[in-house]
Amino acid sequence: MKIKFVVVGKTVEKYLIQGCEEYLKRIKKYVNFEYVVLKDLSPLLQDKSYKILLDENGKEFTSKEFSIFLEKKMVNLSKDITFVVGGPYGFDDDIKAISDFEISLSKMTFSHQMVRLIFLEQLYRAFTIMRGEPYHHQ
Amino acid sequence: MKIKFVVVGKTVEKYLIQGCEEYLKRIKKYVNFEYVVLKDLSPLLQDKSYKILLDENGKEFTSKEFSIFLEKKMVNLSKDITFVVGGPYGFDDDIKAISDFEISLSKMTFSHQMVRLIFLEQLYRAFTIMRGEPYHHQ
Repeated sequence: MKIKFVVVGKTVEKYLIQGCEEYLKRIKKYVNFEYVVLKDLSPLLQDKSYKILLDENGKEFTSKEFSIFLEKKMVNLSKDITFVVGGPYGFDDDIKAISDFEISLSKMTFSHQMVRLIFLEQLYRAFTIMRGEPYHHQ
Repeated sequence: MKIKFVVVGKTVEKYLIQGCEEYLKRIKKYVNFEYVVLKDLSPLLQDKSYKILLDENGKEFTSKEFSIFLEKKMVNLSKDITFVVGGPYGFDDDIKAISDFEISLSKMTFSHQMVRLIFLEQLYRAFTIMRGEPYHHQ
């Protein structure tokens, strides 16, 4: 069972690249994890995994609720899980049509580049909560 | 009229320092802005400004709503506005007692260090919305 994180376009800002790398490293200690950069999301149309879009109209969770949600999906699904962040203009209708679930990180709009860092931090946090481990602050 | 942003303890991660510096630079083009690092929040007890705590139990805004809220406060208040992020354990009761308003950036819990970057990005975004300017992505 693998978790994928799909984004559109390379991360531009150096500080975001560094922050994302830090959390990627941490997450890979918990799960088979793949970070995928696409030019556009069309390859997802053929993807058989359980697809979760990060979308401002999605469901809002607390960090604890998100951890429980993810744990259940990991236990109950017999396929990979793919989290997807759109480009600067969100998602096209064909991608929305194949989505299995939508999560909103906040009512506020974050830049699609910063969402990468914010989401990876939450995913790391979800695993520390699942394992009952203290959050590693630095 | 000045906006202050008060945090507890220096930012540790280099990538967060760089990200915050980028947004501080951008925000200062719009407003008289001061970033204040304190060892603890006790100096706030004497502070006469309008104090807004970033707290997970606060009110959630969309970015647009936050921009409108901030604009109204800037127009109607005859004092400075201070946004405050607590340390890793949130706010003590004496600080909560002198708070004028509480805002939540998300139902999710972010690290108090990452909240600095997320908030500064939202504050910058609020000014671009107020001015009707396109968001500057890079």
